Amino acid sequence: MFRTMLKNYAAKIEAFLTNLPWDEATMGQSMRYSLVGGGKRIRPVLALATAEAVGGDAETVLPAACSLELIHTYSLIHDDLPAMDNDDYRRGRLSNHKVFGEGNAILAGDGLLTYAFEILAQPLSAVSLERQLRVIQEVAQAAGPAGMVGGQVLDLAAEGKTLTLEEVEQIHRLKTGAMLTVSARLGGILGGGTEEQIQALTRYAQALGLAFQIKDDILDLEGDSKTLGKPVKSDLKQEKSTYPSLLGITGAKEQLALQVQEAHKALTVFNKSTDFLYLLADYIAERKS
Amino acid sequence: MFRTMLKNYAAKIEAFLTNLPWDEATMGQSMRYSLVGGGKRIRPVLALATAEAVGGDAETVLPAACSLELIHTYSLIHDDLPAMDNDDYRRGRLSNHKVFGEGNAILAGDGLLTYAFEILAQPLSAVSLERQLRVIQEVAQAAGPAGMVGGQVLDLAAEGKTLTLEEVEQIHRLKTGAMLTVSARLGGILGGGTEEQIQALTRYAQALGLAFQIKDDILDLEGDSKTLGKPVKSDLKQEKSTYPSLLGITGAKEQLALQVQEAHKALTVFNKSTDFLYLLADYIAERKS
Repeated sequence: MFRTMLKNYAAKIEAFLTNLPWDEATMGQSMRYSLVGGGKRIRPVLALATAEAVGGDAETVLPAACSLELIHTYSLIHDDLPAMDNDDYRRGRLSNHKVFGEGNAILAGDGLLTYAFEILAQPLSAVSLERQLRVIQEVAQAAGPAGMVGGQVLDLAAEGKTLTLEEVEQIHRLKTGAMLTVSARLGGILGGGTEEQIQALTRYAQALGLAFQIKDDILDLEGDSKTLGKPVKSDLKQEKSTYPSLLGITGAKEQLALQVQEAHKALTVFNKSTDFLYLLADYIAERKS
Repeated sequence: MFRTMLKNYAAKIEAFLTNLPWDEATMGQSMRYSLVGGGKRIRPVLALATAEAVGGDAETVLPAACSLELIHTYSLIHDDLPAMDNDDYRRGRLSNHKVFGEGNAILAGDGLLTYAFEILAQPLSAVSLERQLRVIQEVAQAAGPAGMVGGQVLDLAAEGKTLTLEEVEQIHRLKTGAMLTVSARLGGILGGGTEEQIQALTRYAQALGLAFQIKDDILDLEGDSKTLGKPVKSDLKQEKSTYPSLLGITGAKEQLALQVQEAHKALTVFNKSTDFLYLLADYIAERKS
């Protein structure tokens, strides 16, 4: 059941992203290269599944859900730049700046970020304007200096330093947690959820986000570089503070299991089926890439 | 009269930008460095003045107007990067990446762009939600791949090539024209203007934008580097196609005068005073920096 639903969601998302009206004359090619090049689509999947969990319609939420993937992709393009993480590969392919050059990669990121807000502001018939505006504000907050971009700044500043567990958690909360959380909230808000439901989805996504990050750290240690599509043990080489480096590999795995439990617990307030969200937490913890 | 009004608008804008809640822990310092470091504030001034021209209230429009300056500043930070124009100075001071490093400069730009949309989505009491959403969509369009960022891509691709007048105009229409036009439209829309008024403001701003660019090209040839706060004759050194290089300096000045006339003509449909906007076009054409 879970795999079929995941495939269904992913297919809808892929179709939407592929069919955006890319203008080849300017930067369609480079934006598309990174956006339509695979990836787990966790953020839009989360938005679609949470919308359905509160009784909303996935089709209505699809464009807004996909805008989250544009924002995620822009952050990867900028993150891979020589001035940042300097990664030549992403998802098993050359990173954007290796193909199109640094200047164009910066602009492709800028373009995707801006285009995301254009999509978020497009008229939606079935959703109140209040909810739509609230989503735009929340997404901007989660992606901006008080969220993802702020986390990147802290991450950049932490290079070569040993961090405490609290500092590591703070970076993740901003760098990846904020966008995952807002993905679930977006689904809840645009899907017509009550405040209580939106709160529950927030707790769910916060635990899911932490689980995601811990698993990422574990995969960097124990994963297979071919399956991952990127080099492993890069955290070790860069002497990065991670969950395994701070808690030991056993401690990190315990923490992972705990966060999955937290995510599951948050779902108990729903009347409608939340099986998919329940299994998504397991999937995050058990994934190989 | 004009100078006093310009000062008044600029003071409001400066106060708003200075008092944004900058978080020093992450990137407040670097975003602020570029944002509060001077500049003509043409875009927010245009938004405030056009709002008043249609009978709107400048205070209501102020946050949205200032968001345009955040977007403009982000574009300058990214534009100055080594991978783009590689400029060490901006507005007479070291450019952002020379002070904070390339990685942080990329993030400061990303942060300003994202924060702009957070401001644009903040609840506004005196404006309908339809108009607010329309503004977000139009700003994203003007700033994104179909506007400013697209223009940057074309500009980057044009390096070292000789362009036709049509190609130069296309780059300017996207790179600077789209944001200037949306500044005037933002004022018209949030100020409560009619569609006819918004159309007239669009024509006004399109002419103003062209005038602005032609004047920029002329200043690069004839201006004083001290007054400008940047080196002159850089277009010549880079063999860039400009209005003076394509039309000759006399032809460029004629074209400038013509655009100022066009801008003036567009204002004739208004009942309320548009003296400020009228004189703003003259100011753009006569400025020394």
